[in-house]
Amino acid sequence: MSDLPKSVDIAEEGPREAFQIEPGPIPTARKIALVDALSATGLARIQVASFVNPKMVPGWADAEAVVAGFAPRPGVAYNALWFNPSGMARAIAFRDRLELAGSITVTGSEAFARKNLNRDHAGQLEAMRRNVAAHREAGVPVTRVSLQAAFGCNFSGDVPAAQALAALDDAMALARDLGVAVDKISLADSMGWATPVRVERLVGAVLAKYPEPRLSLHLHDTRGMAISCALAGLRMGVSAFDAAVGGLGGCPFAAHPGAAGNIATEELVFLCEEMGIATGVDLEKLLEAAALAQDIVGHPLPSAMIRGGGLASYRERAMAA
Amino acid sequence: MSDLPKSVDIAEEGPREAFQIEPGPIPTARKIALVDALSATGLARIQVASFVNPKMVPGWADAEAVVAGFAPRPGVAYNALWFNPSGMARAIAFRDRLELAGSITVTGSEAFARKNLNRDHAGQLEAMRRNVAAHREAGVPVTRVSLQAAFGCNFSGDVPAAQALAALDDAMALARDLGVAVDKISLADSMGWATPVRVERLVGAVLAKYPEPRLSLHLHDTRGMAISCALAGLRMGVSAFDAAVGGLGGCPFAAHPGAAGNIATEELVFLCEEMGIATGVDLEKLLEAAALAQDIVGHPLPSAMIRGGGLASYRERAMAA
Repeated sequence: MSDLPKSVDIAEEGPREAFQIEPGPIPTARKIALVDALSATGLARIQVASFVNPKMVPGWADAEAVVAGFAPRPGVAYNALWFNPSGMARAIAFRDRLELAGSITVTGSEAFARKNLNRDHAGQLEAMRRNVAAHREAGVPVTRVSLQAAFGCNFSGDVPAAQALAALDDAMALARDLGVAVDKISLADSMGWATPVRVERLVGAVLAKYPEPRLSLHLHDTRGMAISCALAGLRMGVSAFDAAVGGLGGCPFAAHPGAAGNIATEELVFLCEEMGIATGVDLEKLLEAAALAQDIVGHPLPSAMIRGGGLASYRERAMAA
Repeated sequence: MSDLPKSVDIAEEGPREAFQIEPGPIPTARKIALVDALSATGLARIQVASFVNPKMVPGWADAEAVVAGFAPRPGVAYNALWFNPSGMARAIAFRDRLELAGSITVTGSEAFARKNLNRDHAGQLEAMRRNVAAHREAGVPVTRVSLQAAFGCNFSGDVPAAQALAALDDAMALARDLGVAVDKISLADSMGWATPVRVERLVGAVLAKYPEPRLSLHLHDTRGMAISCALAGLRMGVSAFDAAVGGLGGCPFAAHPGAAGNIATEELVFLCEEMGIATGVDLEKLLEAAALAQDIVGHPLPSAMIRGGGLASYRERAMAA
C-alpha cells in the first residue's frame, strides 16, 4: 500500500510572502487582484496579508485595505499573519473575512532565533507562553506548532533531525502544558537547506513521535530542491504544504538577496496532479494567476512553469490530431 | 540495501546546448572560456560543440575554432555532437582532442520524428542503419542507444512506458542485428514531460529488459520537475546523467520559446553530494562556471542555485563561530 495521500491541502502564501519582500510600491488594487485571481483557481486557503509594523515592512502598510478589498469566495479560507498582540488586534478587526488562528513557533536553530527574534530558545518558549495567553484573551484559537529553520540555518549550519525534534518536543510540551490542541505541525525550511533525505529523516522522526497532528511542509526553492523535497514528503504521507504562486517570496530574515522564494504552487500542483493526487486546483487558471503575479512584481519569477506552461494544451492538440 | 549509486557520471552539455539556442553572437573566446572553466570543476565529460550546418545553427559556425581552442585537461573527455556524415567528418578532424562515439537514436513519439527528422519510425531505423555503416566506415565506434521524447511529446502527447520501450526495443534489435555493443542507453525527456513516477515506470521497464548497458537520463526542467526526476532515477540506481551548467539550453525543436533548459548541473551535483553520492565535482567552482555562463549569455539562467549559492560558506562560518 502506498503512503501517498489521495489529496493534499495547499496553503497559498504568495500574496503575503511577495508583498513583504518586493521593493514596490505595489498598488493595493493589484494586491487585491492577485488574491481574487488565486481564489478563482480552486485554492482553498490563501494568506492574504501580514499585519506587521509598516515602518519595518512598508509593503504591508496597506494590509487593512487589502483584507477589506478582496471578494470573498465561498469555500475559501483567507488568513493573515501577525507576530504580536497589536498585529493580532488588527487582524481581529476583520474576523468576518479572515480565519484566525495562532501558532506556537520555535526554531530548530537557536542562532536563528537570536538573530531574528533576539531571544534564545528558552526565551522563545516564554514568549510563546505569553503568545498563547494573548490569543486566549482575544478569543483566537491556537491550533498549530511551527518549527522554523527545521533543516538548516545560515547562521549555525546544518540542523540535525535530533536537534530539530528536540526543539519541536519543547513546543509540543508547552502546548500540552497550556492545554493547546495541536491540529497541525509545520516544518519550515526557512533558508533552503532541506534535501529529500533530510525531509525523510525529520518527517519520519516527527510522524513516529507525533502521529496525530497533520504534518505540513513549508519549503523554499533556494537551491532548486523544493519539488524533490515535496516529493519525499508526499511519499511519506505528508498531505499539507505551504506554497507561493510563481515561487514568490524569499526569506527576508536570512540576509540572502536574490535567493529563490517558496516552492511554486503551480509546480507543486503539477507534481501532485500528475501523480494522481488531487489538489482541487485548476492548473491552467493557476498559471494565469502566476503570470499576473509576475506582471505585478515587474520581474521574472523563479517558477519554471511560468515559462514552460502546463501540458493541457498539448494533450488537447494531441487528442484532436 | 539501497539502490542508490555510490557515484554518478555527469555529462556536461551546457556549452553545446547553449550556443545552439542562444541568439548571440557570442565570441568564440568566451565559448572557450566556458569550456575551460567547466573542465576545472572536476567534470569528467564535457560536450564542447555541435558540428551542424552553420546556416541552420549559426551559433555553432565556429565549432572548429572552439574545439581547436580549449585547453585539454588530463582526465577530461571532450566530445561533440553531429547529425550526419559531413558533421562527423568535421569532428574526426579533431580526433586528437575529442572522444568520438556515435549512437543509434530513435524517438518514443513518431510524431516528433516526423516533425524534426521528416521520417517515420521505420524510416528512422533505416537512417540509423546507414548511420552505423557511415560510422564504421569512418572508424568511429557506435556505443549508445538514445531514446528521444521518451516520456511525452508536444505533438503527440503522453508517451506511455510500453510505447517508449517498444521504440527502444527496435533500436536494440537493430544494434544486435548490426553487431553494435551498446554500453549506454540514454532516455531523453526532450520536451519536459517527465515526472518522477514516469521516470520510475520507464526506468523500471528498461532495467528489467536491458540490465547490462549503463542507463543515463537526459532531463529538461521545463516544468520544474528535473531534480525530482533525477532523484527518482538515482533511487532506482541510475548513475549517469546529462546536465547543463546554469540550466543552459532548451529544446530548439519543440516550438517552445522561453522554456527552461536542461537540468542544472550545479543542482544535480548539490542533490547528489548532499545524499552522499560522489560526483567528483567541486561545487563552488561549478557555481563560478555557472555565473560565467550567465554572464556570457547575458540574461538570467534558470538555475536557482546561481542565485541561492551553495552551503559551503555557511557551513564554514558556522564551524568558525
